[in-house]
Amino acid sequence: MHALTYIGPGQIEVSDVTDVEPAPGEVQVEVAFTGICGTDLHIFHGDMDARVTTPAIIGHEMSGRVAAIGSDVTGWSVGDRVTVMPLDWCGSCPACLAGHSHVCHKLKFIGIDAPGSLQRLWNVPARTLVRLPESLSLQHAALVEPTAVAVHDVRRAGLLAGERALVVGGGPVGFLIAIVAHAVGAEVLVVEPNALRRSLAESVGLRTIDPHAADVVATVSHWTDGAGAEVAFEVSGAGAGVTTAVDALGVRGRLLQVAIHGQPREVNLHRFFWRELTLLGARLYEPEDFERAIELLNDGVVPADTLVSAVEPLSNGAEAFRVLGAGTAMKVLVDCQA
Amino acid sequence: MHALTYIGPGQIEVSDVTDVEPAPGEVQVEVAFTGICGTDLHIFHGDMDARVTTPAIIGHEMSGRVAAIGSDVTGWSVGDRVTVMPLDWCGSCPACLAGHSHVCHKLKFIGIDAPGSLQRLWNVPARTLVRLPESLSLQHAALVEPTAVAVHDVRRAGLLAGERALVVGGGPVGFLIAIVAHAVGAEVLVVEPNALRRSLAESVGLRTIDPHAADVVATVSHWTDGAGAEVAFEVSGAGAGVTTAVDALGVRGRLLQVAIHGQPREVNLHRFFWRELTLLGARLYEPEDFERAIELLNDGVVPADTLVSAVEPLSNGAEAFRVLGAGTAMKVLVDCQA
Repeated sequence: MHALTYIGPGQIEVSDVTDVEPAPGEVQVEVAFTGICGTDLHIFHGDMDARVTTPAIIGHEMSGRVAAIGSDVTGWSVGDRVTVMPLDWCGSCPACLAGHSHVCHKLKFIGIDAPGSLQRLWNVPARTLVRLPESLSLQHAALVEPTAVAVHDVRRAGLLAGERALVVGGGPVGFLIAIVAHAVGAEVLVVEPNALRRSLAESVGLRTIDPHAADVVATVSHWTDGAGAEVAFEVSGAGAGVTTAVDALGVRGRLLQVAIHGQPREVNLHRFFWRELTLLGARLYEPEDFERAIELLNDGVVPADTLVSAVEPLSNGAEAFRVLGAGTAMKVLVDCQA
Repeated sequence: MHALTYIGPGQIEVSDVTDVEPAPGEVQVEVAFTGICGTDLHIFHGDMDARVTTPAIIGHEMSGRVAAIGSDVTGWSVGDRVTVMPLDWCGSCPACLAGHSHVCHKLKFIGIDAPGSLQRLWNVPARTLVRLPESLSLQHAALVEPTAVAVHDVRRAGLLAGERALVVGGGPVGFLIAIVAHAVGAEVLVVEPNALRRSLAESVGLRTIDPHAADVVATVSHWTDGAGAEVAFEVSGAGAGVTTAVDALGVRGRLLQVAIHGQPREVNLHRFFWRELTLLGARLYEPEDFERAIELLNDGVVPADTLVSAVEPLSNGAEAFRVLGAGTAMKVLVDCQA
């Protein structure tokens, strides 16, 4: 069968891989769609070669159907529509014992540390499966995983109806956070320099601001009658994004650190003291975030068709990486059966 | 009457000031003792000349008795034993309206932005008075204000019995945080390079570590069986203190930013993301923190006599600043009637 394989920096190719039966405790999923995320792009660019063993089949934002069932698996039938929560935790480290398995000290992320879903048939531990409703298309369901990230971030922020939330960075995750925050009843402002991303956000009713053309902090101050925002989501990964988020927050404001910063950032700790701000790191998701993400997609709250810029067949999967790398698309899906 | 007056960098002198009757809404307090804190020392060194108008009577950690009562004041009698919560808020800014008056946008801090308690007779708004129990000595009561800072910090951390708390910085505030954290039932480790401060902490049963002689993060890892600390209080004000606190925390750990950092600090935001850490800025105190601080001092939980290195008469008040500046004392009180 076919798989999309990362060979080395900038190199993705379609390869033939052997179809392996699911092991005990595993289920084989016929993958329908796999979305490419920022982490996949980092892998493609070679940024994660220290962690990824090549050749590597990556991908983890997916939807599909159960194709075969290994021994010792109950509760699933061939044909069941599923997505996967791609986390494999140890169950015995301090994080797992404290009930925070999603940040397990030894977490294996399926699709990075183990083969991913950019293939026709994918064997995964049965306990990673999440059932999808019949009413949710498999194309939309490929957005469950990134939506669950956004749900987790908004939940960890404790965002309330009527609060003002600044979303610094309007890529796919920032877009989804803005949608989920809006669904909670918050007022949302998305900070994004890329015109395409701003126009997509605006097309679904989100308010945006170009940080290169306007003073974000002054705008937030005016918007909030001098109070500052209650919540800011840092999704840009840039040092300037951190500064903007800190400066835009009001007394007791909460800053959600969503983006990955590969280097230490200068943070105005005096302002954290002065305004009694809170910084919350947020990573991945927990099972309840997946359930809520499925509801939001199934109810049409997440504008999936707006978010998906293109669907490429697996046979042309390298194109999906090239388009995303060029910055001219939001979310690109790979049709893993084509 | 006599007052201790800040004239300019390094210059404090005893001066004669006119005794003024309390205005309507004010109470005149006969000050018993005033403690010198780090902020007073910053003023003494000239670091806050942009904010302080000279000549300035500073000081705000105090105890005393009501000496005279202005018009429009009820509930107080001459001779009542009091301390003062030295905050004068506006009541109408977003912080005040949200119920966080202690971080009022226009907060006036009495003792910095208005005359302080390093004088025999001090007029303050009646609403700043806090009643003291008969059983609490006025010398110990001069520690209510800094103890309230520690109570606020521990409360904002949500510190629970059995949790492991690292206190980075063992000066007076760090010492008090460690005492209050211990009183909550937490296990406490104080990180402090100064041998005098470590020995004082150890003399009241606190565990300490010298960061120049041992690896703090490795020690915490060993102490917590690899989990990391649940809470860290950053009371050092040093960039290295921030790094130590971040690195010592376990999954979902909370870092309380207590110290004032005059410049942005490099913060490992990736670790905030990876371990879902929380950073909480904490400033000053609220009325309930004063009430709890009084209880802790009155019950002898705070070892006041250990904390107080010396008591100097007002007539020799400049000596208190010199001793503190030399780093050879913890807390020095000024006897404002001597």
